This record gives sequence, structure tokens and C-alpha cells, in this order.
Amino acid sequence: MNSATANASSSQRLSAQNLQALLDSVDAFLFDCDGVIWKGDVLIDGVAQTLDMLRSKEKKLAFITNNSTKSRRQNAEKFCSLGISVTEDEIFTSSFAAAMFLKVNNFPQDKKVYVIGGEGILEELQLAGFAGLGGPEDGKKTAQLKANCLFEHDKNVGAVVVGIDPHINYYKLQYGTLCIRENPGCLFIATNRDAVGHMTNLQEWPGAGCMVAAICGSTEKEPILVGKPSTFMMDFLLQKFDISCSRMCMVGDRLDTDILFGQNAGCKTLLVLSGVTNLPTLQDPSNKIQPDYYTSKVSDILEFMGP
Amino acid sequence: MNSATANASSSQRLSAQNLQALLDSVDAFLFDCDGVIWKGDVLIDGVAQTLDMLRSKEKKLAFITNNSTKSRRQNAEKFCSLGISVTEDEIFTSSFAAAMFLKVNNFPQDKKVYVIGGEGILEELQLAGFAGLGGPEDGKKTAQLKANCLFEHDKNVGAVVVGIDPHINYYKLQYGTLCIRENPGCLFIATNRDAVGHMTNLQEWPGAGCMVAAICGSTEKEPILVGKPSTFMMDFLLQKFDISCSRMCMVGDRLDTDILFGQNAGCKTLLVLSGVTNLPTLQDPSNKIQPDYYTSKVSDILEFMGP
Repeated sequence: MNSATANASSSQRLSAQNLQALLDSVDAFLFDCDGVIWKGDVLIDGVAQTLDMLRSKEKKLAFITNNSTKSRRQNAEKFCSLGISVTEDEIFTSSFAAAMFLKVNNFPQDKKVYVIGGEGILEELQLAGFAGLGGPEDGKKTAQLKANCLFEHDKNVGAVVVGIDPHINYYKLQYGTLCIRENPGCLFIATNRDAVGHMTNLQEWPGAGCMVAAICGSTEKEPILVGKPSTFMMDFLLQKFDISCSRMCMVGDRLDTDILFGQNAGCKTLLVLSGVTNLPTLQDPSNKIQPDYYTSKVSDILEFMGP
Repeated sequence: MNSATANASSSQRLSAQNLQALLDSVDAFLFDCDGVIWKGDVLIDGVAQTLDMLRSKEKKLAFITNNSTKSRRQNAEKFCSLGISVTEDEIFTSSFAAAMFLKVNNFPQDKKVYVIGGEGILEELQLAGFAGLGGPEDGKKTAQLKANCLFEHDKNVGAVVVGIDPHINYYKLQYGTLCIRENPGCLFIATNRDAVGHMTNLQEWPGAGCMVAAICGSTEKEPILVGKPSTFMMDFLLQKFDISCSRMCMVGDRLDTDILFGQNAGCKTLLVLSGVTNLPTLQDPSNKIQPDYYTSKVSDILEFMGP
């Protein structure tokens, strides 16, 4: 009990009293999307008005999601369809991060990238000038298991990118495994390692952590992680905003990705309880990740401002 | 170089000189199957004659395989089809081990077992009196991902058994994940964790370690391992043979399962180089698992006996 109390006391509940101090101390708010901005395809109440208010106070906004299914462009379309105006360059997806990782590491343009995951990864790779293969079109393929059967794979694949894939199958696992085990120097990149994701409103479903672990299991290798809690994406935010990390606040619903990302980068952190984390989990003695602030949902920021 | 030499010297190459000492020191030979007895569906040369010779010297024989695809009965049929006479009760599969684990731990008969893997696991569960579901018939099912979609799973599932599954899909991963995450006390049992297996003669393909890791990734739990290198199966061997482990020799092609299993159980160990391990791997300084003896193939035992 003492330990739980001590833990809880290290995070402040956001209130009308401490909100102004938070607003004064930061110039940019970084938002996770799922469980923060929306749940599945439904906007969370009051988000639009809260973002408008923050923009009116000249706060910079960015949206940082581990969901690799969509590209930046596809995410901007989703924001638009929900009535929120966000530009592509305010969006940082783990699919974009994977493509940028290859770019900043001078991945050869004549090498290919095998994708276990969604269309968003392939689109970001293409925008960055890389040739992707695999992805959704391999979802219908099957591996033939017969004596003397040889599974052919492209020897020119120099990286395998793994993200969440609801169409995972043995063909894709074998293709990715062969590239990593047999192509010399082939990179193994994980968009993220979330154990589960809110793919529907009602339940948690296996996330990218499931597919990434499968490839770890067959290759006996650990991946390069580019999504949260890795701070790889922060370099691109810093380029865009020219604001120091200490004057940014990361707002998210997940302790081990969002809040840890914010802490790893030296940002202030605000946990919202509108997604996967509830108050008992935050205050459980076993939880070692404490945000600076917590509140029930993003629109509390607006409510605490008063009339 | 010194380290490699030291390592290599801790294993003896089997020879006409030291074979008799090995034969005198053991009363039972335990054989792994794939890469030792056969490769895929092809018997390795000289195996039949070698087993006959060992039986003629009144050595007990047992066959211990991590391959969970087949039941004991199905494996006996495979031996028979290859011209080798082996009885069901000389065969110890990881599918049998999974069923026996539930039995010795008094798994309630009114609970069910969800299977990610092959028909062999379902058959062994049924023989042990347990109700299995999943397995091959879930290979064609797909998970619907829509807003407000609820994936129903059987709340009466009390154990999930995961083995190699060439028909792995998101439906099975979600089913197993939900049982482990949401059914109180649900067990997570791995038949084995081999990274890859010889499913064809020409290549290595993702093994049970791939599917097991996927479920670890989505459940954030570690499994109970019943196959090699766990010595769980040894209790059943001891019941059958009434021979002390120190008078058994484990013969296998894999260091981290077969040889480690033999060492964990206190058996003598013989590595054959007819499967996944080659001499450079055995003698690499990074390899810490050294068998008592190594040789190129099982029939060397016969050859070294001389005429």
C-alpha cells in the first residue's frame, strides 16, 4: 500500500490548478492516436475542440503513432474524414520511421525491402525511393511443403520490415526468415513491438509484437526498433520544429510505448486513461513507468481551462 | 584458436577405439529422428542395420522427437513405411509430452485445450482423454476486423498448446492469445521451441519456435516447455525402461535441444553431423554445448564395430 501510494504520488493528476504550469512549460504537444485521438474509427469526444484551442495558443502539434498499417498520407485522410485538419508533415508513423531508418543509413537503392505488414509500409518505402515487396499481396500465397521442395527468395532483399499484419501466414514468415538467415547483412527492422492493439473498439488483438516475435523466434535475431519507445523518430520532429525536447509534452495512452518514448526523449509526459491503461494499472506497485501528469481524456485540457 | 581447440577436445570423435567403451557404458540409446534417423521422408543410409545390431546386443531403443506434427501412432507408421520395426511405446513425441503434462498435472476433464499445431497434438490429447479444439481445421478461418467486431472464444479453454504450424494465421493467433489473456489460469504450453526444422530436404523452415514466440509476443507470457531440452519426457522413459539415466546415450543432431536434453538428464551424449549441426559449428568457440562423442552419422556405430 505504501509503495502504491508512493508510486501514485510521482504522477500528478491534471487539474485546473496545474494545467497552466504545463501549458507554460511546453511549446509542442505530441499525440499518440489510437486510444488518445480516436478509438478504431470513432473520434474521442472533445478532441477536435481541444486541438483547436492548443493551436490558437500557438502550440505546435504532432501525431506519433506506432500503427504501421497506414502511411502519413493515409493517416492525414483519416484525420480529415473525422473532421480534423492535420497535415501529412505533422504525422509520424512507424511505417514512415522504417523508411527513414533505411534512408538515413544509406540503404542501397538497388537492394529491395521485404515487408510483413500493411500497405502503409510499402507506400512510405516507395516515397523514400525504395523497392518494397511482400505486404498484402503475399497474404493469399501458400508455402508448398513437399520433399525436395525449395522455397525461392530474392537474394537482393537487404532488409525485412515487420509490422502488424492481420494477414500473417507461413509463406510470409518463411520468406522473411530466409532473407534474414541467408542474405548476408540483411537488416531486420520492427516498426513497433506493441503486444496488442485496438483493432476493433471492443477487444485487444495481437499487435506487431506478435509478428516481430515470430521472426525473432525463427531467426534467433533481435530487430532494430524504429517506433516508440525508440526515440528514432524524434530526430525528424526536432528538424521540423526546432524546439528542444524539454519543451515538448508527449500525450499517450500506453505506458511502455508512449510515456516511455516521451521520457526517453526528455519530454514532459501526460497519460490519458481513454485507451489501454486504466488507473489501477498506473498505480500498481509493479508499474515502474510514471508520467508527469495523468488525466481521463484529451478534452480535460479544454475543460480545465474554464470558460 | 586456443579456445576452439580446448572446446573441440572436450568432445571425442567416435572411433573404433572408443566405441566399445561407449557400448559397455550404456543399456539404452535414445535417438532423435529428423536429421538422425531420416531427413524428411528419406531414411539415412545404414540406420536400419545399425538399430538391428544394437537390438541384437540387447540395447533398449527409444525415439524422442520434438516434432509435434505426428502422434506416436503416426510416427510408428512412418517407421514402418521406411522398413524399420518400432513400436508406439518406444516413441516419445512432443505432442505426447503435451498431453502427458496435462495428465500428470490433473488438468480438469471438463476443460478444453486449444491447439495451434498439427493433427498429432489433437490425437494425443484425445488418447489422454482431453477435448482439443483448433488445429488444422482453423487453418481456413479468417478473423473479421471491423469496428464493433467481437471475436468470441471458448471461456472453457484451460490450456493452449503451441507447436509447429505451417498453416498459422491471424485467427489462430487471436484465438490462442484471447484464451491465455482472458481465461483465468489458462496454461500456455509449448511442445518445443526449435527455431527451424527440416520440413523439406533442401532448406530450413520456421519451426515451432516461431509460433511459440508469436504467442509470447502477444500475451507477454512465457510458455511451459515439454519437449527437448526440457527433461519432462524423461520420467516416462524411466517408467518404461527402469534404467538409470547415466546408462542411457542420447543421439541427436541438434546441440540446443538433443544434446542439452541428454546433458540435462544426466545421459551420455552423441552428436551426429547428418542434420542441422556441422563440425565448424560444434567447434566454434561460441558454442558452449559439447557432447561426449560426435560422429558423422548413426551407421558409423556399425562401421566402427568392424566385420
